[in-house]
Amino acid sequence: MPFSDKFLKRRAQTQTPLCIGLDPEWEKLPAVAKDQKHPLSYFCNTIIDSTAEYASAYKPNIAFFERFGSKGILQFEEVIHHLKTNFPHIPIVADVKRGDLANTSKEYAKFYFHTLGVDSITVSPYMGMDSITPYLEMGGHVFLLCLTSNEGSSDFQRLTLEISTPFYEHLATFFEGESSSYPGQVGLVVGATHPFDLEKVRNLTPSLHLLIPGYGAQGGKLEEILPICGKLSLVNSSRSIIFASSGNDFAVKAGEVSHSIHLSMRRILEN
Amino acid sequence: MPFSDKFLKRRAQTQTPLCIGLDPEWEKLPAVAKDQKHPLSYFCNTIIDSTAEYASAYKPNIAFFERFGSKGILQFEEVIHHLKTNFPHIPIVADVKRGDLANTSKEYAKFYFHTLGVDSITVSPYMGMDSITPYLEMGGHVFLLCLTSNEGSSDFQRLTLEISTPFYEHLATFFEGESSSYPGQVGLVVGATHPFDLEKVRNLTPSLHLLIPGYGAQGGKLEEILPICGKLSLVNSSRSIIFASSGNDFAVKAGEVSHSIHLSMRRILEN
Repeated sequence: MPFSDKFLKRRAQTQTPLCIGLDPEWEKLPAVAKDQKHPLSYFCNTIIDSTAEYASAYKPNIAFFERFGSKGILQFEEVIHHLKTNFPHIPIVADVKRGDLANTSKEYAKFYFHTLGVDSITVSPYMGMDSITPYLEMGGHVFLLCLTSNEGSSDFQRLTLEISTPFYEHLATFFEGESSSYPGQVGLVVGATHPFDLEKVRNLTPSLHLLIPGYGAQGGKLEEILPICGKLSLVNSSRSIIFASSGNDFAVKAGEVSHSIHLSMRRILEN
Repeated sequence: MPFSDKFLKRRAQTQTPLCIGLDPEWEKLPAVAKDQKHPLSYFCNTIIDSTAEYASAYKPNIAFFERFGSKGILQFEEVIHHLKTNFPHIPIVADVKRGDLANTSKEYAKFYFHTLGVDSITVSPYMGMDSITPYLEMGGHVFLLCLTSNEGSSDFQRLTLEISTPFYEHLATFFEGESSSYPGQVGLVVGATHPFDLEKVRNLTPSLHLLIPGYGAQGGKLEEILPICGKLSLVNSSRSIIFASSGNDFAVKAGEVSHSIHLSMRRILEN
């Protein structure tokens, strides 16, 4: 099932846009996880089991696995396998931020969409449309970095073009246009930390899914984001859920926090 | 030894800026390589042994390894290990085009600079300076995508800013400025396919190393590039060397082609 359909179906079940980011930062793992043979996948899979009820999507970030090279990527594969086997109804966004020439992007596309079979990946758009089409032609969905949640987003993304438009707005309009050739396959990453700009992007891109990180630990507020983000958006929370406790009760606490976010989201959305 | 010193020392030995790109595209591998247990590292390591005399740098692109997941990354590790063990005087640029939030970039930096110990990596700059500093603070060198060699480079990189400057020129000036805080650690990727613009970037960034892909298979001409690229540049060739023959004599042919490029470079540089 294409990402867009799968996400909307799942969102209708949970009634919320909660995307749970899986960033298993080694230093923050509880002792019980560090003692395992495969600490990263043990940690993530345990978190998944205790939060799946409230997840409209999972977003594992490969950097935390790649840090350990081939041994880490093996655990990334285990997490994807766990999700696909046990929770085939929950879409997976592989947060990999890849981007390269067309013939090279094709290699990435083969791994993520064919071998792993994730539903969407994040991609850096700077190299232009021909670096992105290989993912789309393979039927995959991509979230393109548009306006990210870090301070450095102002270094380039906010530069004003001669047409009096900030770069990221131009990028949003560009991909809204391109998406007619690839309906349901293009999305944008827009940080929750800039609600005013999020609303601008939302208005410019009525047909795109938005992946919204930066809620919670990075400071974005649910009350500001939810009323403007619309049904196509995924609102991501990583650290506030997965590191809710640094002890051996990490999974129980992750479940509790995701339940509590779920309830907050429903309350705000129903008002 | 820092990348910059290592590269300049090696360049003084070879007298040319030849960087050999290792892109082991599965479909193009000779039968003898496909028959091996580890085809990708077998192919690359054999190519390395037959071309090392003429290489001022090697640039393995991880996408061709990542396509095979953890099994591919294991072979990427083998290629880096082979280079570091047998050719410690030749700098390695890991072509990975990563880029993420600071705390996430730090994970990539740990793998590439600490665990693998490569000399430089390619990074996508779109997320801004705070996404790049983790690599620099670890003492590593980065090549930032500036003006890439594909057609799609015009989609965003050539957009004109309100200060009448194309985006990529602004980016070049920005990083020339930042490099004073990290001397010798910042470089730019500028495609060989745009010699006029390459010259502009070269003039804007006298203190930065340039990594110049797109020579050979992608159409850039040595006669145009070498006279303008200066001593800090790496001129990369991938496919025309590593796929010089699709037969079992691939290594001999790679050696011959790299020798012939080496001679052409020297002839042009000495004129």
